[in-house]
Amino acid sequence: MADSNLQIRLQERPTAEITDSTFVAGEEPVQPPKDGEVLLRTLYLSLDPAMRGWIRDADSYVEPVGVGDVMRGGTVCEVVESKHGEFAAGDKVFCLGGWQQYVTAKPEGFMRKLPDVGLPLTDFLSVLGITGLTAYFGFLDVGEPKEGDTVVVSTAAGAVGSIVCQIAKLKGCRVVGLAGSDEKCSWVTNELGADVCINYKTANIAAELRAACPDKVDVYFDNVGGEILNTVLGMINVGARISICGAITQYNKSEPTPGPANYISLLTKRSRMQGFIVTDFLPRFDEAITQLAQWKMEGKLKHREDVVDGLENAPKAIHKLFDGSNKGKLIVKVADPS
Amino acid sequence: MADSNLQIRLQERPTAEITDSTFVAGEEPVQPPKDGEVLLRTLYLSLDPAMRGWIRDADSYVEPVGVGDVMRGGTVCEVVESKHGEFAAGDKVFCLGGWQQYVTAKPEGFMRKLPDVGLPLTDFLSVLGITGLTAYFGFLDVGEPKEGDTVVVSTAAGAVGSIVCQIAKLKGCRVVGLAGSDEKCSWVTNELGADVCINYKTANIAAELRAACPDKVDVYFDNVGGEILNTVLGMINVGARISICGAITQYNKSEPTPGPANYISLLTKRSRMQGFIVTDFLPRFDEAITQLAQWKMEGKLKHREDVVDGLENAPKAIHKLFDGSNKGKLIVKVADPS
Repeated sequence: MADSNLQIRLQERPTAEITDSTFVAGEEPVQPPKDGEVLLRTLYLSLDPAMRGWIRDADSYVEPVGVGDVMRGGTVCEVVESKHGEFAAGDKVFCLGGWQQYVTAKPEGFMRKLPDVGLPLTDFLSVLGITGLTAYFGFLDVGEPKEGDTVVVSTAAGAVGSIVCQIAKLKGCRVVGLAGSDEKCSWVTNELGADVCINYKTANIAAELRAACPDKVDVYFDNVGGEILNTVLGMINVGARISICGAITQYNKSEPTPGPANYISLLTKRSRMQGFIVTDFLPRFDEAITQLAQWKMEGKLKHREDVVDGLENAPKAIHKLFDGSNKGKLIVKVADPS
Repeated sequence: MADSNLQIRLQERPTAEITDSTFVAGEEPVQPPKDGEVLLRTLYLSLDPAMRGWIRDADSYVEPVGVGDVMRGGTVCEVVESKHGEFAAGDKVFCLGGWQQYVTAKPEGFMRKLPDVGLPLTDFLSVLGITGLTAYFGFLDVGEPKEGDTVVVSTAAGAVGSIVCQIAKLKGCRVVGLAGSDEKCSWVTNELGADVCINYKTANIAAELRAACPDKVDVYFDNVGGEILNTVLGMINVGARISICGAITQYNKSEPTPGPANYISLLTKRSRMQGFIVTDFLPRFDEAITQLAQWKMEGKLKHREDVVDGLENAPKAIHKLFDGSNKGKLIVKVADPS
C-alpha cells in the first residue's frame, strides 16, 4: 500500500474562470482507519459543472468548499481496509471522496456500496450515478412530461442532457436538443434519437427553435440559463414546466447577467419554473437506479464518457466542462482496481 | 327602459400607457333579447390591471380585445328581460358584460346568478369576485403556505394583495407587505393585520425587506415584477414558492425590462416560480366563494372599494390602477338597481 496520498485542495476562490492558482496539489501520509472507519482508494473521480458553484463563497444548496480544504467530488472507490462491519476490503463504493487518492472516513452521508450487476464502474458516476439520477428526477418529477409533449433540452450532448433526451423519447415526447458542435448534434439525433438538434454556436437559435417546435414547448430542461432560457420562455405552451438543472452560462461570471425578461410567460401561460437538487430525492435513489440500470442493460440508454487519466490532471480537465470540449461525462481515472 | 346603450370601445392599441385615444364612446340601440337570450342592465363594472394585457396584441391567456370591439370587463348586471328559462327579470348576475350599459346575450361562459346572501353587490366584483378568487387560489394553491411561513405580498393595499395578506394571517403566517404610501401601509398593518408594511416609494426596499424577514421568505405573492421580484428572489428559503399573479411594473412598457437575474435562486434554493390564471380554478369557484363569504361575514376579510360614478368615466379612472391612486378595488358604478 502506498503511504502517500496525493490531494488537490482549493487554494483560492476564482472571481470568474477557474485559473492555475485555484487549486494546489500536495501530499499527506495515508491515514489508517480507526474503529468504525474505512480506508478507501479512489478509482474514479467525477468532474461536474456544479463544482464551479461549490467553490463560490455564496449561499447555495451546499456549504462552499473551504479555502485550504480538499476539493469536493463524487468518486467510485475501493475499500482497502475496513473497521466497519458493513464494509469489507475489495468492496466498491460511491462516495463524496473528493480530489484525493485515499479517503479515511466513517461510511456516512452518501457512501453507498455498489451492486455487482456486471456494468462498468464508471457507469456509477454517469448513467447510474448523480448524472443519471439528476436526469431522471429533474426530467420526470420536475418536468412531468406527458406523451406527445415537445421537450427542449439544452446541453443535449452533455452528461445529464443526453440521458434526458433518451428518457424523453422513451416517454413518447418530441425531443429538440441544443448542443455545441455539428458532431455533437449528429450524435444527439442519430444515436440518442432526438428529433432535432440545433448547434447553438452557429444557428439562429430563435428561428431554428421555432421551426423545430411547431407545437411550441411543453417541457424545457435547462442547463444553461441566459439567452436560450429566455428564448424558450417566449415559446412555451399553457401549463409548461421549466426544470432548472443548471445555468452554466452564469457560473463563471462574477456579476450575474440580466435575468430572463420572458419570465412573464410564466404568468400569461400559467406555467412553472422550478429548480431542484438531486439529493432531495435521496429516498427514491434505489427506484431510479433500478430503472436506469434496466434501460441501460436493454441498450436503451447510450452514453459517452470522456475519461482523463491521472488525478493531477483534474484541475486542467475541469475547463472542458466550461469550454464544451468534453465529449460525454467527464471522469478522472485515479487508479485501477486491485 | 332606455333605448340607447352607451358603449366604450377600443379605438387603438396603446404602445405604452393608455391615452385619451385608446378608447372611444358611442351609442347604439339596445338589442331586445331573442329566444335563449337575456337582456342585462350593467350596475357595476370592475376595472382591473389585467385589462392592460387584454388590449395588447400579444399571445396571452385570453384573446386580445379587437380594435373596434366593446372593451371587455367583469360586471354585475340585473336581468331586464329574459328569454332563457334559468333567468328571470330582477335576477342579479356576474358576467363579462364589458364597458357598456346594456348587454344582450346568451347566458354562456362566465355568467353566474348571484346568491342573495345579504352582502353588497359590489362584493361580487371584489372580495367574492375575481379579485377574491385570484387571492384565494393564487395564494393557497400556487403559494401553498404553511403555518409559520414568512409571506411577502407586493401591492399589499391593492384589491388582490389586501385579501392575500388577510388569508395569510388566517393561516398563521408572518406577513410582510409592500405598498405605495404611508397611509396604505398603515391600513395594511393596522386593519389587515400584516406584521410589517414597507412603503416601496420611499424605503430602501432591500434593506427593509431583509430587516422584516429575519427568517427569509417562504412565499412571495407577486403583482409587480421588476426589481422587487428580483430582490425577493435573492432572499428565498429552500423550497420557496413564488406565485406570479401580475407584473404591473411591466404592463405599460412597450419593451420588456430585464428579467430577474436572481431567478438562479430557484436552482440554489430548489424553489418554484409559477404563474396562474384564476379561471383555471373554475370548477372550484363555489368552494372558494363559500369560504370567502364566510370569512367576510365573520368580519375577517376587510376590504376597500374605490367606486367611480358613471360609465363615461371608466377610461379616465383606469389610470388610477397604474399610478397607484386608487384606494381599494376600483369599480365603476354604471346604474342603480331597479
